[in-house]
Amino acid sequence: MNPQKPSDNHSPTDCEILELISYNRELHDKYTGTYTTVESILNKIQPDRVNWINVDGLNNQDLIEKVQTHFCLHSLLIDDVLSDQRPKAEEFDDYLFFTLKMLYRIDGTAIDYEQISFVLGKNYLISFQEKEGDWFDGFRDRIRLDQGRVRKKQADYLLYRLIDIIVDNYYNVLDRVGDLIDETEETVYQNPSTQTFTKIQYLKKELIYLRKALFPLRDALSKIVKGESDFVKEENIRFFSDVYEHVIHLTDSLETYKDLVSSLTDIHINAMNTKMNEVMKVLTVISTIFIPLTFIVGVYGMNFHYMPELDWRWGYYSVWGVMILIVVGMLAFFRHKKWF
Amino acid sequence: MNPQKPSDNHSPTDCEILELISYNRELHDKYTGTYTTVESILNKIQPDRVNWINVDGLNNQDLIEKVQTHFCLHSLLIDDVLSDQRPKAEEFDDYLFFTLKMLYRIDGTAIDYEQISFVLGKNYLISFQEKEGDWFDGFRDRIRLDQGRVRKKQADYLLYRLIDIIVDNYYNVLDRVGDLIDETEETVYQNPSTQTFTKIQYLKKELIYLRKALFPLRDALSKIVKGESDFVKEENIRFFSDVYEHVIHLTDSLETYKDLVSSLTDIHINAMNTKMNEVMKVLTVISTIFIPLTFIVGVYGMNFHYMPELDWRWGYYSVWGVMILIVVGMLAFFRHKKWF
Amino acid sequence: MNPQKPSDNHSPTDCEILELISYNRELHDKYTGTYTTVESILNKIQPDRVNWINVDGLNNQDLIEKVQTHFCLHSLLIDDVLSDQRPKAEEFDDYLFFTLKMLYRIDGTAIDYEQISFVLGKNYLISFQEKEGDWFDGFRDRIRLDQGRVRKKQADYLLYRLIDIIVDNYYNVLDRVGDLIDETEETVYQNPSTQTFTKIQYLKKELIYLRKALFPLRDALSKIVKGESDFVKEENIRFFSDVYEHVIHLTDSLETYKDLVSSLTDIHINAMNTKMNEVMKVLTVISTIFIPLTFIVGVYGMNFHYMPELDWRWGYYSVWGVMILIVVGMLAFFRHKKWF
Amino acid sequence: MNPQKPSDNHSPTDCEILELISYNRELHDKYTGTYTTVESILNKIQPDRVNWINVDGLNNQDLIEKVQTHFCLHSLLIDDVLSDQRPKAEEFDDYLFFTLKMLYRIDGTAIDYEQISFVLGKNYLISFQEKEGDWFDGFRDRIRLDQGRVRKKQADYLLYRLIDIIVDNYYNVLDRVGDLIDETEETVYQNPSTQTFTKIQYLKKELIYLRKALFPLRDALSKIVKGESDFVKEENIRFFSDVYEHVIHLTDSLETYKDLVSSLTDIHINAMNTKMNEVMKVLTVISTIFIPLTFIVGVYGMNFHYMPELDWRWGYYSVWGVMILIVVGMLAFFRHKKWF
Amino acid sequence: MNPQKPSDNHSPTDCEILELISYNRELHDKYTGTYTTVESILNKIQPDRVNWINVDGLNNQDLIEKVQTHFCLHSLLIDDVLSDQRPKAEEFDDYLFFTLKMLYRIDGTAIDYEQISFVLGKNYLISFQEKEGDWFDGFRDRIRLDQGRVRKKQADYLLYRLIDIIVDNYYNVLDRVGDLIDETEETVYQNPSTQTFTKIQYLKKELIYLRKALFPLRDALSKIVKGESDFVKEENIRFFSDVYEHVIHLTDSLETYKDLVSSLTDIHINAMNTKMNEVMKVLTVISTIFIPLTFIVGVYGMNFHYMPELDWRWGYYSVWGVMILIVVGMLAFFRHKKWF
Ligand SMILES: [Mg+2]
Ligand SMILES: [Mg+2]
Ligand SMILES: [Mg+2]
Ligand SMILES: [Mg+2]
Ligand SMILES: [Mg+2]
Ligand SMILES: [Mg+2]
Ligand SMILES: [Mg+2]
Ligand SMILES: [Mg+2]
Ligand SMILES: [Mg+2]
Ligand SMILES: [Mg+2]
Ligand SMILES: [Mg+2]
Ligand SMILES: [Mg+2]
Ligand SMILES: [Mg+2]
Ligand SMILES: [Mg+2]
Ligand SMILES: [Mg+2]
Ligand SMILES: [Mg+2]
Ligand SMILES: [Mg+2]
Ligand SMILES: [Mg+2]
Ligand SMILES: [Mg+2]
Ligand SMILES: [Mg+2]
Ligand SMILES: [Mg+2]
Ligand SMILES: [Mg+2]
Ligand SMILES: [Mg+2]
Ligand SMILES: [Mg+2]
Ligand SMILES: [Mg+2]
Ligand SMILES: [Mg+2]
Ligand SMILES: [Mg+2]
Ligand SMILES: [Mg+2]
Ligand SMILES: [Mg+2]
Ligand SMILES: [Mg+2]
Ligand SMILES: [Mg+2]
Repeated sequence: MNPQKPSDNHSPTDCEILELISYNRELHDKYTGTYTTVESILNKIQPDRVNWINVDGLNNQDLIEKVQTHFCLHSLLIDDVLSDQRPKAEEFDDYLFFTLKMLYRIDGTAIDYEQISFVLGKNYLISFQEKEGDWFDGFRDRIRLDQGRVRKKQADYLLYRLIDIIVDNYYNVLDRVGDLIDETEETVYQNPSTQTFTKIQYLKKELIYLRKALFPLRDALSKIVKGESDFVKEENIRFFSDVYEHVIHLTDSLETYKDLVSSLTDIHINAMNTKMNEVMKVLTVISTIFIPLTFIVGVYGMNFHYMPELDWRWGYYSVWGVMILIVVGMLAFFRHKKWF
Repeated sequence: MNPQKPSDNHSPTDCEILELISYNRELHDKYTGTYTTVESILNKIQPDRVNWINVDGLNNQDLIEKVQTHFCLHSLLIDDVLSDQRPKAEEFDDYLFFTLKMLYRIDGTAIDYEQISFVLGKNYLISFQEKEGDWFDGFRDRIRLDQGRVRKKQADYLLYRLIDIIVDNYYNVLDRVGDLIDETEETVYQNPSTQTFTKIQYLKKELIYLRKALFPLRDALSKIVKGESDFVKEENIRFFSDVYEHVIHLTDSLETYKDLVSSLTDIHINAMNTKMNEVMKVLTVISTIFIPLTFIVGVYGMNFHYMPELDWRWGYYSVWGVMILIVVGMLAFFRHKKWF
Repeated sequence: MNPQKPSDNHSPTDCEILELISYNRELHDKYTGTYTTVESILNKIQPDRVNWINVDGLNNQDLIEKVQTHFCLHSLLIDDVLSDQRPKAEEFDDYLFFTLKMLYRIDGTAIDYEQISFVLGKNYLISFQEKEGDWFDGFRDRIRLDQGRVRKKQADYLLYRLIDIIVDNYYNVLDRVGDLIDETEETVYQNPSTQTFTKIQYLKKELIYLRKALFPLRDALSKIVKGESDFVKEENIRFFSDVYEHVIHLTDSLETYKDLVSSLTDIHINAMNTKMNEVMKVLTVISTIFIPLTFIVGVYGMNFHYMPELDWRWGYYSVWGVMILIVVGMLAFFRHKKWF
Repeated sequence: MNPQKPSDNHSPTDCEILELISYNRELHDKYTGTYTTVESILNKIQPDRVNWINVDGLNNQDLIEKVQTHFCLHSLLIDDVLSDQRPKAEEFDDYLFFTLKMLYRIDGTAIDYEQISFVLGKNYLISFQEKEGDWFDGFRDRIRLDQGRVRKKQADYLLYRLIDIIVDNYYNVLDRVGDLIDETEETVYQNPSTQTFTKIQYLKKELIYLRKALFPLRDALSKIVKGESDFVKEENIRFFSDVYEHVIHLTDSLETYKDLVSSLTDIHINAMNTKMNEVMKVLTVISTIFIPLTFIVGVYGMNFHYMPELDWRWGYYSVWGVMILIVVGMLAFFRHKKWF
Repeated sequence: MNPQKPSDNHSPTDCEILELISYNRELHDKYTGTYTTVESILNKIQPDRVNWINVDGLNNQDLIEKVQTHFCLHSLLIDDVLSDQRPKAEEFDDYLFFTLKMLYRIDGTAIDYEQISFVLGKNYLISFQEKEGDWFDGFRDRIRLDQGRVRKKQADYLLYRLIDIIVDNYYNVLDRVGDLIDETEETVYQNPSTQTFTKIQYLKKELIYLRKALFPLRDALSKIVKGESDFVKEENIRFFSDVYEHVIHLTDSLETYKDLVSSLTDIHINAMNTKMNEVMKVLTVISTIFIPLTFIVGVYGMNFHYMPELDWRWGYYSVWGVMILIVVGMLAFFRHKKWF
């Protein structure tokens, strides 16, 4: 599956779109429209079929209210759909509410979060998306072409499949994070630059945000897996259990990546310190060799009238001799200290 | 909603104020007074209405005692109202006690905490505030004008609405913290000054205090959500559940912000080290280039009578040649070491 | 309340002191004695009253054994009274055992710990103190003068009051720690000296020890609050619950202070590094300015016979001109690098 | 047991291999084949024996499907067998599914992970391995030669034995990590080089990955130990309990190693700092001794016409005297500061 | 009690020793032998007494097997006795298995661990020790001389007493760790040498290992305290509860010591940095004072023919004057910066 975002248009949609896919074992119908044709589409819902109503864009209050009225949705539920929400599952009298984040990777590194909320009734599933475009196009084709189990199953299986697709996408996003960690690790040993450090901090931040999306999702799925919901049939719980395990696997990976990124910081700091030490050693070696020599030549640059050495025939060469001895001694000392 | 503090007067109030709002579906009355008129106001309470008694300022022992006597409040409860308390919910025989912190943002950054305590009885709600001024003025208008559900509901819904308003304000405060973190992050990469570091530490401190207010609030609400209280009707638990989720969402954000601020400290330290390294490199480059050169010119500044080089025709130019070679060699070495 | 230690004498007492306060609604008697008069005092115990037996000093085995025999105390309980113990509540067949630490602040900063153990029977309360002197003198007067509820209540309420007084004292101690943290924070930004760092470490250590005293106390009180004890009446559990909440509030503050002290360490380290960087910058600025200049003057200090510049009329002034240009260039470079 | 990988061939196998070991108290048969002969081998399964079917290599969809069909395996189970999975135990109607990681040590340090999945039925055990080669060859001989208990026991005991062998291998891997930590500790005190640091980071990384394999395995085994499975007989739970304890022991060791490796990082950083300090001290000692001396000889290298000292008879020797005094004074100062 | 190891011989014993102490209220017998006389000693066991069988050294398979056969010990139990085990309690049909670590302090600092395992039956207690020598000699005398409760009690009380003695010894070991921490703290403030740092790391390591021995012991004892064992009588649970509390107290101390040792590392690093800063300051002060002076004297060492200052009468003294002014100015600057 292509981890790039499937649709180009990815800013909050003004033109709300309503889509109804209605199917059973034999039949399959699809209706789309904007908020002007809401009623006519809602009238197409048939009690003996699975009806998937998808709403793209949440800015048109009129459309949302019509959907709310048609399905008798609680005002608190609509509040949750419309505002940024922690992933959660909540059971109402006539439906199950489930909300989570759908992830998109932008330009290969940045991650975009879209909130998607589901309302699962006896024979319908409503999905509310903040923006147009999602990961379900391939699956819409599978429903239409009657591939796999979905046409033989009810609305709860449909919910499972949609969550499963979203969670599968988390793997793509997290794998890319893992690749970036590996790439950065190679760089950081060679060249602990500020860019590398910024990259490490960026990865850390992404993991912090992913954690915020993943951990509550685990709790939400665990509610369903424990069989607390009337709207998920006993026989389908195993499917939700499968997604639940995927999410736990993902949180494990997240913790692992967190530890690896924290290691990267240590490596960066160490590489920087090592480089600094090397600089200091060069400074020290050059300074400690030449500072005493400069003193010696300074001595014989003095202008005292009475300085016997100056008149010696081999004075100049003797000074060179002494200085060479000092250099050799110093180098031996540095070698002994293992400074180079 | 304006996140700035609504009332100007914000020092512990001397003039205690008592306010009674008494309403049902049809009727709405409001009485205010100071401690001199306490009895007359308390006599206005009507059993067939919802009676909201608000007390501003807790220094007048006389007023507090009259309220205590009128509603038979436990002495431990009054102790809790009067002293700094951990947010909590406690069920007594005749009422439910709930205390939490109300937040105000001062001058756009500092946060002020006011303790507010509620006593929820069958047909009344008492709110004790440390200081005059709160976030409820808009809601008082909604009650008066009969907007929303509140006039159709009982005292427990009123409690929910007041807590909800307080918690909504936490979002404002926390969003501002988030903005400050973003601002600081941009600064810290450019200029790791002491001011930036002080700002980071300030943010850290605010988060520590917010944590102290938020985490116990979660536990207090969870008590009500579990249906342990006789004073919150079954049908209204979902509303408290909604606030409870808000608080969990807030604690998630708090943890996220804590991690981000801890990252900021890392970034600051790294930026400081990088700057230091640059300073050291300049020192080392200049020193290691000129210290050997200074030695060489020192050699030919010596006053030995017998120094053949001094008499050479091209001696002076040869020295310059040697020195230029050394400088070129050194620069090549530094370039090789990638020091600049 | 004065947070200073009330009694001067605070070394393990040799002269063991036994004190009996025996009271009911109407009557109040007080008897004191040393281990020579133990029996006569124990005989004063009256079944229809609350009898509070206080033992100061635990070194006299004879006295301890007489008390043990009189109340049939288990040998493991006596072991716990005599040795350093984790705060705990333990139910025996005929009494409830409760042990905790009483805190004293010495010289305004150091904290002293005294173990105090209680044995609560049907109509008596024994308190074992390691040393003479406690925080109960004011309360002893309240009993004598029949102030508050205590004379109307039984031995379990007496136990609550004594624990409450001890826990109230923890607030004094912890508030002082909070003040010290604030004081140190101001200092550390200005002057990151070794004394400041030692102070920070001292605070950290005190918090580590306080934690050891507070966390088990929470668990011990929680046992009583859950109603697991036969010796605390149902109606009085709310009082223990109040102390329990105080202890939770204290542990919250402890965690907060721990985070603040850990911040102080960060601030100290950062202040030290900033100072170091400043020192390095001064060294670098002075060195990089004067080292090249010294080289230049060294060049014209050479004694070559053929050095044309030396004979130039404006040679000397030209050198000064070149050197001034170099200094100006360097200063511009440093200003550009924002080193000062 | 030899901790080196037993089989040479360790890349994902193309030629899938199917192996059937069928035994009871009296009889033992072994059949092997590739996917072309799957049916004939599956037909050899006998209901009154323990049948162990081992599948090496998971790329041949045809073979996997035939096994799936023969044992009516759930599609979710096959998904789990084929993709990277968190260790877990899952009970189905007709079998128990168990998956974990098998470890190989490559070249004495690197660790290779192979996923192995088990399906335990009433009279059969299927094991799916990603690659050819495992740790069971010695045990296959024991079955054939009827050594130990295995031929007297059922398929659940066989599962226990295979898991036990895999977990025993974890000990080999972890002991090697422990040895590497000890080796590195010795090196790091002597010579805090970049290689040592890289080694430390490598160990940290291995522990992070091992943690990911071990912790979920603990939970999976705990499920069986609690007696939740119908496919493990009551009498054999004690055996699984034994492996369970091994895994807990291993996680304890893992945490211990994690703490030790974190200590190693501290030691490395400290050793590097100590070395840096030593370098700085040498630089400081040489500089502070010779810089003032160089100044002094510079003074008497000045060419002023009127400099009385130059004409003194003992001027030159006096300067030497002053310089020696300065050197002695400096050395005394450094000695006093304990710099060497 | 002497915390030094009681017996000299402390290498894994070759000559296995079997010891039987058989007692009741009236009688006491003691038999010892090596593996050649195992049967004869096992035959001395009398059903109406408490029989304590102690095995020293676990290398003689023959002896172990005879004991196993005599008491029908499970093969998994014997595995646990013979290999390194996590402390644990495990209930079998006919006995309770309990294993833990016995600590010895070697040369005042190092800690040696010996695994000791107990099998508690109805009327017997077997203790398996890896090596000869233990902490029980004083207690063996108390049994013989009928001191304390032990002769009036059954085998479960005997187990309690032995565990109690082992745990009391943990206090000795941990107190010594506490003393070492105090000693090191004093040193580290004065002299942050590499030896001190190595000592701190050593303490950290010891605490890591102690943690591994103590935490599982707590869980093992908690099993017995919860009354889950049939082999510990109801009336004796309070004794095990006492040891259990000791172990919790020890784990509290361990955590406290861990925090203190982590503080020590901080103190060490800070002391090292402070020292480094001082070195840098000396270097900077000397360099920044003398480098400009050396430049000045260099200026007047130049050999230009036309340098007016050289001919001035007071030129030389003026230069000294300027240099003294510079020094005074520098010193004022350093004083202002609070560098010394
Ligand atoms: Mg983002
Ligand atoms: Mg969308
Ligand atoms: Mg999936
Ligand atoms: Mg987000
Ligand atoms: Mg799947
Ligand atoms: Mg964590
Ligand atoms: Mg207010
Ligand atoms: Mg709200
Ligand atoms: Mg506060
Ligand atoms: Mg909501
Ligand atoms: Mg709301
Ligand atoms: Mg935490
Ligand atoms: Mg203390
Ligand atoms: Mg006392
Ligand atoms: Mg109190
Ligand atoms: Mg203590
Ligand atoms: Mg209270
Ligand atoms: Mg109170
Ligand atoms: Mg912690
Ligand atoms: Mg799966
Ligand atoms: Mg394999
Ligand atoms: Mg094993
Ligand atoms: Mg892996
Ligand atoms: Mg085994
Ligand atoms: Mg931990
Ligand atoms: Mg075992
Ligand atoms: Mg031994
Ligand atoms: Mg003991
Ligand atoms: Mg060990
Ligand atoms: Mg005890
Ligand atoms: Mg004891």
